[in-house]
Amino acid sequence: MDAALTPRAKDYSQWYLDVISSAQLADYSPVKGSMVLRPHGYAIWDGMRTDLDRRFKETGHVNAYFPLFIPVSFLSKEAEHVEGFAKECAVVTHHRLRAAVGGGVEPDPASKLEEPLVVRPTSETIIWHMYGQWIQSWRDLPILINQWANVVRWEMKTRPFLRTAEFLWQEGHTAHASRDEAVEEARRMLGVYSDFAREFLAIPVIPGVKSASERFAGAVDTYTIEALMQNGWALQAGTSHFLGQNFAKAFDVTFQDADGSRSHVWATSWGVSTRLVGAVIMVHSDDTGLVLPPTVAPVQVVITPIWKSDAEKESTLAFARKVKEALHPTVRVVLDERDGVKPGAKYFEWERKGVPLRLEIGPRDVANNAVFAASRTGGKKFGMAFEGLLVAVQQKLNDIQTELYDRALARRTEATHRISSYDELKERIEAGGLFLVPWHDDADWEARIKEETRATIRCYPIEGQDEAVGKTCFASGRPATHMAIFARAY
Amino acid sequence: MDAALTPRAKDYSQWYLDVISSAQLADYSPVKGSMVLRPHGYAIWDGMRTDLDRRFKETGHVNAYFPLFIPVSFLSKEAEHVEGFAKECAVVTHHRLRAAVGGGVEPDPASKLEEPLVVRPTSETIIWHMYGQWIQSWRDLPILINQWANVVRWEMKTRPFLRTAEFLWQEGHTAHASRDEAVEEARRMLGVYSDFAREFLAIPVIPGVKSASERFAGAVDTYTIEALMQNGWALQAGTSHFLGQNFAKAFDVTFQDADGSRSHVWATSWGVSTRLVGAVIMVHSDDTGLVLPPTVAPVQVVITPIWKSDAEKESTLAFARKVKEALHPTVRVVLDERDGVKPGAKYFEWERKGVPLRLEIGPRDVANNAVFAASRTGGKKFGMAFEGLLVAVQQKLNDIQTELYDRALARRTEATHRISSYDELKERIEAGGLFLVPWHDDADWEARIKEETRATIRCYPIEGQDEAVGKTCFASGRPATHMAIFARAY
Repeated sequence: MDAALTPRAKDYSQWYLDVISSAQLADYSPVKGSMVLRPHGYAIWDGMRTDLDRRFKETGHVNAYFPLFIPVSFLSKEAEHVEGFAKECAVVTHHRLRAAVGGGVEPDPASKLEEPLVVRPTSETIIWHMYGQWIQSWRDLPILINQWANVVRWEMKTRPFLRTAEFLWQEGHTAHASRDEAVEEARRMLGVYSDFAREFLAIPVIPGVKSASERFAGAVDTYTIEALMQNGWALQAGTSHFLGQNFAKAFDVTFQDADGSRSHVWATSWGVSTRLVGAVIMVHSDDTGLVLPPTVAPVQVVITPIWKSDAEKESTLAFARKVKEALHPTVRVVLDERDGVKPGAKYFEWERKGVPLRLEIGPRDVANNAVFAASRTGGKKFGMAFEGLLVAVQQKLNDIQTELYDRALARRTEATHRISSYDELKERIEAGGLFLVPWHDDADWEARIKEETRATIRCYPIEGQDEAVGKTCFASGRPATHMAIFARAY
Repeated sequence: MDAALTPRAKDYSQWYLDVISSAQLADYSPVKGSMVLRPHGYAIWDGMRTDLDRRFKETGHVNAYFPLFIPVSFLSKEAEHVEGFAKECAVVTHHRLRAAVGGGVEPDPASKLEEPLVVRPTSETIIWHMYGQWIQSWRDLPILINQWANVVRWEMKTRPFLRTAEFLWQEGHTAHASRDEAVEEARRMLGVYSDFAREFLAIPVIPGVKSASERFAGAVDTYTIEALMQNGWALQAGTSHFLGQNFAKAFDVTFQDADGSRSHVWATSWGVSTRLVGAVIMVHSDDTGLVLPPTVAPVQVVITPIWKSDAEKESTLAFARKVKEALHPTVRVVLDERDGVKPGAKYFEWERKGVPLRLEIGPRDVANNAVFAASRTGGKKFGMAFEGLLVAVQQKLNDIQTELYDRALARRTEATHRISSYDELKERIEAGGLFLVPWHDDADWEARIKEETRATIRCYPIEGQDEAVGKTCFASGRPATHMAIFARAY
């Protein structure tokens, strides 16, 4: 794709697709709703995975792997859960193909399964079945397990990374002896996600609690981190659920406590997915293409040598290799040695791929024992001496990281509106933003607002709930029970 | 499980299951043929994954991710491929459940898919469909992509790790402009697998070529690494396929060469799976339980403090923590601080989990500023001074690694038999071992031998084929075309 990207201001949705396509992050597949993660897109997810995995281990978790298939009867055991997931799942009914009349193959009727299997939309049910076999006494608790896996939710309207039939994610599933411990775990993981979003993704997020109607199917409480995209829409970037004893009761998982009594086990689950790649794109990128925070970028620095004659080529390439050597492996660096591709075309390509820092090296730079640098975040190009280059590059990458976070935070601050009437929401919602309001918890009003404005309650922010005291609901006028954030969301 | 393991000599298959269960590596799931990888088992696979991923990247490969589902029509496009995989695959036919009469849920007939989807048994077809869209010119080649994924092959007879309906693996899929380059790639990856088996798994393997009847469905040549288990059976531990132009032709993938001509693209694919965990268990473990090479072991060193009085407990634990501090994080070390579990019980548990080195610390050791060490590979316990402990422990772990490899190699050497008649194979096959024979390539004889002895051709070893020259086939008496290894295999 060589044409310019659709500008954000013209068509934000098309711009998003253009960024993905021009950076070769993902591609459509022949399977409706499933996407292909191309190497550059997969590498971004893989970097997130590595960083998250370290954070999970530091908080005492271990990884395991549970089956892809779940017997349909398992889904039914938790009433809300089946309600939430039965409508959108892939169902395996046969285990063999046979030659079809007229060519091709078809499911062999003789191979029909006695009980159909569902491709996991999430793994609570199969995991709690196993926990039932592993947990007998308080000594077996807590269980702090995470799983890296693919899951399938049959979505009709899909959007790369943000909503696809199959996606990659991690799902933590923990089992505890007490309510308090489980609540603490659910909140701890919300904190891990918030820190990760801020430190690794350079995305400021609002940690909060979901309203009842936005809860995970089977949860007592759903915690969420919400991020603001550049078009003023919100995106749920990760969730952590306090599941109470719902799944322990559905699968009859009890433990004997130190005092000899038996109780049902308390549970949490928590997850983030490849959706985070979509969040990074939507928060940081610009009309030129992908912009990546250096922590996230599979390639942090690209070196583009410039030459005209063969003699220049030799000396420029030699110096460029020396520069690469000085940065590798502390910095993830690529030297673009391709012949027959003009420097301008190279700049263009690496900019679209979101590489944070470009080091240009021409004959004059070789003579100066220096490089000429361009930041993906803009600003004037600047010289960098070869002496001390590694430290200077690391510093510059840190600066870019901070700059991206600060920009995102400034955008969010500017787009957060305190309003006091429902009319104001109706007037302003089309322009986007987060609307922070005093709110009286009420599912009917919530449904009406969604219907009329397509805005939903993103969360009751953890911080600042005191503010609701003594206020009246912006919609119903009744005494406020929460401070709520309304927004349109992906 | 507290009972002793079934000894290998009594019932090798039961011993294998006992090792897995007592080390808590895996568990049976409610889904027929699918297993649960418990944290200790998953950590072993994860370590393999990390090491392999590094080797793949060092040889120029990148990761990507393709859809789990494959339209059934794709499978049919390569004639041998559909033949090989259609008989054992999970077929998705519906995308929604509905409430069933009499309770529970069932597939909603209104959600029947127009074209059924197969859960990938391997991804050649969907990947070559995508390559068809990505490859236009020689500039787009080579494509060197690897995928870490789960795959499903509906197996009726399963065995944990060795043969399960769902398993985890990696599958490399590469596209090249020339035959030679593709053959070179297939052989390069065979080398990567051999090195990995030797250096990381401490398993000596025989790299070789499969006979036509043992080839991957759709391959021109299948390369394999074969390992010997302790019961004298062989195990195929990894394969690398030269696919010729078969998939490029099936999916019509051509490229324009520098000279303007168009040709079909050349392909390879290669994979190893969680089966390798089974190989490690079967090659190294003993009647006490799991034995792991230090490279593979999630826990390389366990520290078991011993105390009687509270005062002893305090000083012993303090010293034990100092020892842990001295080793962490260079060595993967666990300090077993559990109260109320006797030292003997701790030794027993960690031995069953295959931890290579145990450091016992009692009050006398504290006084001596030393630890008392026990190797999982046996031998007398020995003292190790605290001074210089890290280096000494690393050296000891290296020694254990070498010792395990040497033992496995010695067993294989002893169990490799050169025989010259089919009668001898029939007499000796029951006792196990690898039978190296001059062989005239002949599918009928091969089938007869399999039928009569359950022995199959494991491979034509890459090394030593010259030996066949001038020899006659051990079975048919015709001029030998190859040196072949026959064995019973998993």
